[in-house]
Amino acid sequence: MQVFLAEHSGFCFGVRRAVKMAMEALNSGGEVCTYGELIHNPQIVQKLEQEGISVCYDIKNLKDKKVVIRSHGIAREDLEILKANGNIIIDATCPYVKRAQELVSSVKELPILIMGDPDHPEVQALLSYGGKQTRIIKPGEKPESQMWETLCIVSQTTQKLSNLQELVAQVLPHTLELRVFNTICNATTQRQEAALQLAKNSDLMIVIGGKHSANTRVLQELCKQVTSSFHIETAAELTPDLLNGAQNIGLAAGASTPENIIVEVYNQIFRIKGEPQSVQQIEEIPVYKEESC
Amino acid sequence: MQVFLAEHSGFCFGVRRAVKMAMEALNSGGEVCTYGELIHNPQIVQKLEQEGISVCYDIKNLKDKKVVIRSHGIAREDLEILKANGNIIIDATCPYVKRAQELVSSVKELPILIMGDPDHPEVQALLSYGGKQTRIIKPGEKPESQMWETLCIVSQTTQKLSNLQELVAQVLPHTLELRVFNTICNATTQRQEAALQLAKNSDLMIVIGGKHSANTRVLQELCKQVTSSFHIETAAELTPDLLNGAQNIGLAAGASTPENIIVEVYNQIFRIKGEPQSVQQIEEIPVYKEESC
Repeated sequence: MQVFLAEHSGFCFGVRRAVKMAMEALNSGGEVCTYGELIHNPQIVQKLEQEGISVCYDIKNLKDKKVVIRSHGIAREDLEILKANGNIIIDATCPYVKRAQELVSSVKELPILIMGDPDHPEVQALLSYGGKQTRIIKPGEKPESQMWETLCIVSQTTQKLSNLQELVAQVLPHTLELRVFNTICNATTQRQEAALQLAKNSDLMIVIGGKHSANTRVLQELCKQVTSSFHIETAAELTPDLLNGAQNIGLAAGASTPENIIVEVYNQIFRIKGEPQSVQQIEEIPVYKEESC
Repeated sequence: MQVFLAEHSGFCFGVRRAVKMAMEALNSGGEVCTYGELIHNPQIVQKLEQEGISVCYDIKNLKDKKVVIRSHGIAREDLEILKANGNIIIDATCPYVKRAQELVSSVKELPILIMGDPDHPEVQALLSYGGKQTRIIKPGEKPESQMWETLCIVSQTTQKLSNLQELVAQVLPHTLELRVFNTICNATTQRQEAALQLAKNSDLMIVIGGKHSANTRVLQELCKQVTSSFHIETAAELTPDLLNGAQNIGLAAGASTPENIIVEVYNQIFRIKGEPQSVQQIEEIPVYKEESC
């Protein structure tokens, strides 16, 4: 049996930065809250709560505190409320998400389609920066068949590039000018490409990440197109049945999946298979490269 | 045997307008020339010459004349030379081509890709309205794999929409902002769709138009993807061999194909088949609609 980890798995720059900023805020004293869960990973959120960083879901309860804005960003109006209520703002919005917000804001007089999951906080925040003609469109959803003189398209940063390409091809005949802001973050694309590459060379893919994590879901979607694939949140979900005799197992992890969970999953696979191998840190897990197999 | 004509066949608005403007110029007196052939149809060009509208290929010979700018438009520098040499300009540039020129001009400080045939006068003229970072890219050609902060894309008005969609999908991952000006003219799209629809329901397609006509070539390309198809310029090219027992024959014609040539081709088919049917005008040829077959 061999187990490889896909390149670019785990914490992305934006998530690493958000966790670091939250911890620094805590260490500099005062009561620290995040408005909503800092990242889409319950294990990390729990760990942060144990350290003393609480999660608040009701904006009315946030007054005169240190409030960390999570990497997904928050709606423009919510930011104003937080400021008006005397909170100190620690803005950990991912810079790539910030750029998307600024782009939406800069063309808000024009019709804008935001491609993404309407329930995702990043998308809801993006929407708040648009104007009256800003709409959300789900990946794969058919756009209205109307003519646009100028149409802008922005994507949730963690979407699949192929979904954006498909949307663009669909609206192109119905526009005179189409402005596409490619707001899919580079780390997202690299992570997706690496996971897909590994999936093509594996009997089984284990995709690790929060069940609400958009980018982890996309990884799972991509992997299951080419091989057997499961999405798990922790090593506890792994069972002998699930591994079902697979010999070439691939691991991929979302942008908010901490290293220790990846390590636990890796070790658990070997434990289930009755092989004594185990690693202490992520650096010991072999990373899949084209030439690995 | 049945013979149908594809909807939207023959003279488009831009070509009709150009021929009309040239004739009006002639009728109002003075020596009238076109700089290059007015449209991509040798039979029409010959007819215009017989009427007294000569074709000039050497710009130096155009002085103090009435010069008709053809529907493809001309290079910015050439227009300046014509004006400087005391000519009266009759600008019959197709308004859709004009719009494309104005769009290229409006973003000339940015990198621009013009998708089209590098040898086509429309494309060469478009290029002259761009800046240092304006390039021509052939349909189907792979773009350079570089990163663009902002990239603009414009198309030759008679290109296939699918080629534009493919180019856009290819460059999208390499741009932060992509501005696509959909400059493919509506008549072009309609003509292509109608020809393809008819081709799908025909044993044989006869595509009629000038051998140098870009839009006729695209029609031929599309039709031969789904059925047997020939590109001819006049009825004289039709032979019994070519018809080869076809029972459902479709006709499609480019934007610069005059009605009388379509009528001649229609009649010639029946003559070859030994059937007495013949028509006097294009209105008598049955036009194919979805429900025709």
